[in-house]
Amino acid sequence: MSLLVVGTVAFDAIETPFGKTDKITGGSGNYICHAASRFMHDMKLVSVIGSDYDQNELNWLKNAGVDLAGVEVKEGKKSFFWSGRYHLDMNSRDTLETQLNVLEEFDPILPESYKDSEFLILGNIEPSLQRKVIEQMNKRPKLIVLDTMNFWMDIALDSLMQTLKLVDVLVVNDSEARQLSGESSLVKASKKIMKMGPKYLIIKKGENGALLFYENRVFFAPALPLEEVFDPTGAGDSFAGGFIGHLAATKDLSFENMKRAVIYGSAMASFCVEKFGPDRLKEISDEELAARVNVFIDLVDFDIILK
Amino acid sequence: MSLLVVGTVAFDAIETPFGKTDKITGGSGNYICHAASRFMHDMKLVSVIGSDYDQNELNWLKNAGVDLAGVEVKEGKKSFFWSGRYHLDMNSRDTLETQLNVLEEFDPILPESYKDSEFLILGNIEPSLQRKVIEQMNKRPKLIVLDTMNFWMDIALDSLMQTLKLVDVLVVNDSEARQLSGESSLVKASKKIMKMGPKYLIIKKGENGALLFYENRVFFAPALPLEEVFDPTGAGDSFAGGFIGHLAATKDLSFENMKRAVIYGSAMASFCVEKFGPDRLKEISDEELAARVNVFIDLVDFDIILK
Repeated sequence: MSLLVVGTVAFDAIETPFGKTDKITGGSGNYICHAASRFMHDMKLVSVIGSDYDQNELNWLKNAGVDLAGVEVKEGKKSFFWSGRYHLDMNSRDTLETQLNVLEEFDPILPESYKDSEFLILGNIEPSLQRKVIEQMNKRPKLIVLDTMNFWMDIALDSLMQTLKLVDVLVVNDSEARQLSGESSLVKASKKIMKMGPKYLIIKKGENGALLFYENRVFFAPALPLEEVFDPTGAGDSFAGGFIGHLAATKDLSFENMKRAVIYGSAMASFCVEKFGPDRLKEISDEELAARVNVFIDLVDFDIILK
Repeated sequence: MSLLVVGTVAFDAIETPFGKTDKITGGSGNYICHAASRFMHDMKLVSVIGSDYDQNELNWLKNAGVDLAGVEVKEGKKSFFWSGRYHLDMNSRDTLETQLNVLEEFDPILPESYKDSEFLILGNIEPSLQRKVIEQMNKRPKLIVLDTMNFWMDIALDSLMQTLKLVDVLVVNDSEARQLSGESSLVKASKKIMKMGPKYLIIKKGENGALLFYENRVFFAPALPLEEVFDPTGAGDSFAGGFIGHLAATKDLSFENMKRAVIYGSAMASFCVEKFGPDRLKEISDEELAARVNVFIDLVDFDIILK
């Protein structure tokens, strides 16, 4: 049940109404591994970092079962850095600074030991690089999950469309689904997008939950109504990591199990936002996870007996 | 199980991306009665209309079990009229014209036969008029539901706060909940608002569903992901009508039954938007209602066995 994770391992500096951080660890690959590690321990990470990266964080990943052979370290160079400020409602943010640094020359080369991974999740990077990873696999993984964003729809739509043909599950937010499909109805959008390649589509709606589409079926997972969102950074990647972590751990690709995976993803996202960075994901006990899933069960539980 | 409904009975002219109507019947009281009539048949309506109002619509209400003794007809005057245009996403609209007409001098006087009603729903009108209705009751109803809007928070907040002290359930949308509480987190907003009087708070989030808050409990009802929203006018009132209609029909005010009422309200809203005006609400068969509720059940159904 090996899981190959492709994504950034980076530094973030974050300002929210609740506080401010200096450089802390982040990146899509990092958050995905943190969340997936709650469910399984055979992960392989592909990424690129500078020699300035945090050794403690790498050690944590290693101990959590993440193979770092595919994480290229560019000596004397700096890791990818993003800094942003969240608005009071926490739903929107301004980018203060982006330093691509090592990411500018990221060229994902898979170590031989990675090429038979059964599950593959492609974090949000350039679509041609995502494709390049798929092409290096010895055999097609059981499941390929793709994350992307509006930026690639703006500047690399053709390339993104080629990549979409190769994947099983696409994860985007509602505005990205609308942009990609040109449809304002998310149901119509899902039909168009599922014709582009992915058999499954997950549309994340932030504090309004997430929709899972498959054929003519749809599942809705609520987001927890939270009193305080401390730091939304990484919530989407934590969702994706929890989702594929559960699937890789159970090896069950039925729609019923996909729905469970969406709930586990939502639970991981709800933990992620409780602290700055991925730290909260490091310390989730079995009891906490079970209690959180129970909150999701209760939240939508009602009982109507139809005659 | 008599239900007293206070609200407007009016004309609307609506433009959506799907079409355009001349004057058609509408109004909060009208939509509430239409939706509630699917569940019960002892309703009493308080409203005001001009002599131009549609007699067929009044006859339909009468046949559906709505007592119209409290609907004042102002001879030679015109009914309240609103005209609006929906944007492509159907979530926002521009008001093109508002003619208050008879509504300008609306003074709700309850017929004697109305004053012992067991359930009361106050559609969105001036808070002092809502209060005036409550004060005319012989005894306090088992349940008082209040709808209001940001307009009254802007120009009559003190009066609204007095009215809030007298009601059991407040129904608002998310931006209204934020405005009323001054909190951006809906959980925090709910705590503040429940201290203002209502024991229950329903926050409607349009295509993102609805939250029901009670003490420290919360229930989330999704909205149906719809392929086409034909006309959103009246969806909120249809929700409120389905909600109180189910409660009045069952006379069960437990939290479990409140949750069912939220689902029935959501179902009625989902029917309402399928056609212009309240027409779709007139023709819902038992099979259709059961099928629609089943869609809600399936939409959030998942099955996680916690160890």
